[in-house]
Amino acid sequence: MKSYTKYDPLVEYVLRSADNTLILGHRLSELCGHGPVLEQDIAITNISLDLLGQSRMYLQYAAQQIGNNETEDTLAFLRDGMQFRNCQLTEQPNGDFAHTIIRSFIFDSYHFYFCQSLKSSTDSSLAEIAAKSLKEVTYHRKFSSEWTIRLGDGTAESNERMQKALENLWPYSGELTEEDAVDAKMAAEGIGVDLKDISGSINDYRNNILERAGLKVPEKVFMHSGGKKGLHTEHHGYILAEMQFMQRAYPGLNW
Amino acid sequence: MKSYTKYDPLVEYVLRSADNTLILGHRLSELCGHGPVLEQDIAITNISLDLLGQSRMYLQYAAQQIGNNETEDTLAFLRDGMQFRNCQLTEQPNGDFAHTIIRSFIFDSYHFYFCQSLKSSTDSSLAEIAAKSLKEVTYHRKFSSEWTIRLGDGTAESNERMQKALENLWPYSGELTEEDAVDAKMAAEGIGVDLKDISGSINDYRNNILERAGLKVPEKVFMHSGGKKGLHTEHHGYILAEMQFMQRAYPGLNW
Repeated sequence: MKSYTKYDPLVEYVLRSADNTLILGHRLSELCGHGPVLEQDIAITNISLDLLGQSRMYLQYAAQQIGNNETEDTLAFLRDGMQFRNCQLTEQPNGDFAHTIIRSFIFDSYHFYFCQSLKSSTDSSLAEIAAKSLKEVTYHRKFSSEWTIRLGDGTAESNERMQKALENLWPYSGELTEEDAVDAKMAAEGIGVDLKDISGSINDYRNNILERAGLKVPEKVFMHSGGKKGLHTEHHGYILAEMQFMQRAYPGLNW
Repeated sequence: MKSYTKYDPLVEYVLRSADNTLILGHRLSELCGHGPVLEQDIAITNISLDLLGQSRMYLQYAAQQIGNNETEDTLAFLRDGMQFRNCQLTEQPNGDFAHTIIRSFIFDSYHFYFCQSLKSSTDSSLAEIAAKSLKEVTYHRKFSSEWTIRLGDGTAESNERMQKALENLWPYSGELTEEDAVDAKMAAEGIGVDLKDISGSINDYRNNILERAGLKVPEKVFMHSGGKKGLHTEHHGYILAEMQFMQRAYPGLNW
């Protein structure tokens, strides 16, 4: 019975980005056909597809490193919860539109500086994935930032709902830039991003947008973490159940 | 690849009751820990367990008829959507408490007369399952009827929400008593319930309760059907994904 697996540091590191984009991409795909207006429905579905495309690149690279007949598909569809390395933020439910937007805003503001820095990785595969992703992530950040401002600085009700979403999701923001041994090793080798290095830019960016949105950054918040190490919230299992049903029920299924 | 399977008429017939109770039991189990007050939370969880217990008896009997190493577990956890024979009513989402109650009220009012009649089946296994179930189902019907009256005849808002739930779910009521070739054959052989025969009692019972609840029976409604033949609504796949994840991910898993 597979459960927790420890991979090589490089694989661990690549899976974090692979799973952040896979799980958030899946969450956003749940909204396809359910957006509040058609244009945003399509925008969110496009962002979802961007993230799934980025995830595929990371997963292919991770599978290549692991060997053993592992593929992007086996990694996406046959790992169980504790083998997933996404930050807990990305698995949080869509909630109302405010939660969807705030979750993306917190992630995108991190993701932009992460990709910008990873572009200079000494690992040419990662550098290439980051360069390709950055164009898309620039748009994602613009999209979620603009909606954050529009709804935060909108009606009394929209402001209240955005503030509530911010308070609910902010405790999951810390893990994105929390450096552990794998992050430190990869950064030291020039392969990974120095999270301490990009934290300042991320904070400045967030503070600026949230101020324009009339939203208050929650203070003295306990930050959850564990996703990077395979510890997930209750929502994660339901995502996998849906996402993996087909390959679980019909192993080796092909188009 | 397994998909639609045609079973012997007796197995088809048994699976209908097995799957009605399994799927509604699963739906009600989703509410465990989420009821509006503790006492009702426990009541609903108990009803869920009753239904799952009934389902096990039907599934064991069906597995015995099928042979081929089929067991209650393989039938519950390894069939795909089109092999399930539950009426579409039972797979409808919990929605708000009004939807949960109305769904149970529609089902229980059918289920009571169904079990009462099945008790006289010439098939001693079915007669025995029905006799055991009837005690529980009598309580289920009392529970959902009392809540239907309390909420229907409650505040303006509770009445409105109950009426809305009734309108949303009534179109799934017809399938329960819609006789098809399998029902007719089983009834003719004295094995199954004559659905035409119990329809009058079901209608009288429902009308009486709904009238006391101040709720109007929707008129000229298009009745959905297909569940008995393996055709399900979009909700069904999500139920299976959750319910079957463990056995799909870890085939043959034991305690």
